[in-house]
Amino acid sequence: MATVITNIGSLLTNDPSLGTVEDAAVVIEGEHIAWVGPADRAPAADVRHDARGRAALPGFVDSHSHLVFAGDRTAEFNARMSGRPYSAGGIRTTVAATRAATDAELDANVARYIAEALRQGTTTVETKSGYGLTVEDESRALRIAAAHTDEVTYLGAHIVAPEYADDPAAYVDLVTGPMLDACAPHARWVDVFCEQGAFDGDQARAILTAGAKRGLVPRVHANQLHHGPGVRLAVELGAASADHCTHLTDADVDALAQGTTVATLLPGAEFSTRAAYPDARRLLDAGATVALSTDCNPGSSFTSSMPFCIAVAVREMGMTPDEAVVAATLGGAKALRRDDVGRIAPGARADVTLLDTPSHVHLAYRPGVPLVSAVWQRGVPV
Amino acid sequence: MATVITNIGSLLTNDPSLGTVEDAAVVIEGEHIAWVGPADRAPAADVRHDARGRAALPGFVDSHSHLVFAGDRTAEFNARMSGRPYSAGGIRTTVAATRAATDAELDANVARYIAEALRQGTTTVETKSGYGLTVEDESRALRIAAAHTDEVTYLGAHIVAPEYADDPAAYVDLVTGPMLDACAPHARWVDVFCEQGAFDGDQARAILTAGAKRGLVPRVHANQLHHGPGVRLAVELGAASADHCTHLTDADVDALAQGTTVATLLPGAEFSTRAAYPDARRLLDAGATVALSTDCNPGSSFTSSMPFCIAVAVREMGMTPDEAVVAATLGGAKALRRDDVGRIAPGARADVTLLDTPSHVHLAYRPGVPLVSAVWQRGVPV
Ligand SMILES: [Zn+2]
Ligand SMILES: [Zn+2]
Repeated sequence: MATVITNIGSLLTNDPSLGTVEDAAVVIEGEHIAWVGPADRAPAADVRHDARGRAALPGFVDSHSHLVFAGDRTAEFNARMSGRPYSAGGIRTTVAATRAATDAELDANVARYIAEALRQGTTTVETKSGYGLTVEDESRALRIAAAHTDEVTYLGAHIVAPEYADDPAAYVDLVTGPMLDACAPHARWVDVFCEQGAFDGDQARAILTAGAKRGLVPRVHANQLHHGPGVRLAVELGAASADHCTHLTDADVDALAQGTTVATLLPGAEFSTRAAYPDARRLLDAGATVALSTDCNPGSSFTSSMPFCIAVAVREMGMTPDEAVVAATLGGAKALRRDDVGRIAPGARADVTLLDTPSHVHLAYRPGVPLVSAVWQRGVPV
Repeated sequence: MATVITNIGSLLTNDPSLGTVEDAAVVIEGEHIAWVGPADRAPAADVRHDARGRAALPGFVDSHSHLVFAGDRTAEFNARMSGRPYSAGGIRTTVAATRAATDAELDANVARYIAEALRQGTTTVETKSGYGLTVEDESRALRIAAAHTDEVTYLGAHIVAPEYADDPAAYVDLVTGPMLDACAPHARWVDVFCEQGAFDGDQARAILTAGAKRGLVPRVHANQLHHGPGVRLAVELGAASADHCTHLTDADVDALAQGTTVATLLPGAEFSTRAAYPDARRLLDAGATVALSTDCNPGSSFTSSMPFCIAVAVREMGMTPDEAVVAATLGGAKALRRDDVGRIAPGARADVTLLDTPSHVHLAYRPGVPLVSAVWQRGVPV
């Protein structure tokens, strides 16, 4: 059965040969795009959806989230934004709640936030473990995540588990040994939080290398809070993505520009912690590939909204509206090494987001307004 | 017929004696609130809505918008955010498009944006003329606005009309003379853009005073782009609100703290023009009353989202989440001198916004996410 979405005023394809098509139509067959072109030349289809002149673009690709969690950190957020002291356990608070949760509770949470993202136009979501920090709890998190998405990342090295606070080397041995054994079958990616107070460059290298030996492709939480070795390590190891990239030296920027590692920027984190934003302009001007993602998690960035991230990236990070929208679609796909999503072209997955506006620029021009009016995921209307 | 909204996990009433009620219920009779209290003591009602433990608050009161317009300024926004030169006509672009539009087109636009705001929890909207700048076009704008809201503001003094560019004094005579005659019957408020390049302190005083003589209560676009006389003039004339308040001297802050004029802050404008934000903390600490509003307009702040304004005010303007939510509800009501909206208490208008979260803090904690799950306006579910 074929569906045609026709009368699209402006279609962002992210395809070099198609570009942005005015008065366009997209034909979907099954889970894939079958045809893209001018509406008046579209082939016949069984189902017709009239976009009434509005804009369409590829479904957003959110390449960085932390959705396998339980518990709530509203009080911590409220205290931080109100200037009140709060004895926050930080990530440890969420670790304790996540360990205490049932499988069903965690599953429901993942389903809830993926559905929330889908309603906002996000058709591909990566998500991670990292709130379990035991063999059992990390592998459980990945099993639960894998029931909802193909893009699952093993982040046993989120922080040193509380039980190993006095012996981080032993925790690295666990993460690279028995925990990896239990987790590798359920994940595609291996990740590490390379940061002061979490894992240093040598530890991060050991964790990513061990994961790679088990077939997991590296990605790195790098240079979020301070300068450090994360970005250059990511590029050296051929990681798919270096995420955050907030504190970069010229050497870091050069490495990203020369290498194949995508710089994934997460403006929700800086927004919700009142931190300085990364400089996307500097990265783009150097020639690096930039992705935008939500970092959705209950501690530092509890947004699932890619449109919000686009608007903030334009306001704060020197991106043009076009660059930000591309980073939130094609950029995310590149950060996940996917060529079947993030673009609208024959053969690609039929993930299409329709806006209630004449242009994708409105994602930045109309911040905060829910503009997504329809979504198709794998050819199915949501 | 009575409706009970019950099982509200957290109810923000903005009522000094009720405060925030946990496990609450609200009973609506007709257009008004009949009862507020603990859910287990709620009186019987004909219709029952189960809030399932989620948060409720008064409908947002958006006390500053510019919805009577036509045309689009996407290209201007895109160029500004992309660092490209653009020979923008600014407000004049919208004036030309608005004059050229039919009544039906303008009416449809106002209806569209008020409906969009309502879906996002805004139950009271003020809106203005100011893109007509002729006797006929300004009075037409107000007639159209008045069909959609009681809160209509005469802003003939938005800029000097292009036809009077060489004789601004003659334009002030028009605004205070024949244009006022034609507009006063359709408006509640008179406003002026008191700013370099628009109207100076003496002109603003003449316009506001003339309006007041016709029964219109003053409000002022004040101190948005530069320091200036607007805020002190607003307080001196007993204006309901001084709007923007971005560039304030200590004397301006003192005047707002001592007077009855509400300081209405419009973070969408600074967000969309990359300008420095007003300092809400300074105003609150001095004792001023602060409102938050969208400034929704196609040139400088094309958001209709009060949740977005709350999140930005917390991030950028030193407001706590509680302060920002109160400013977006009760603050807006005070800026419109209304005591029937902005609060949930017996006798108030039954304007209730229900969130899909356990607390109103999530409006800042979860930026960009559409959290409004149900809205009642004058007792009617939307
Ligand atoms: Zn992360
Ligand atoms: Zn305004």
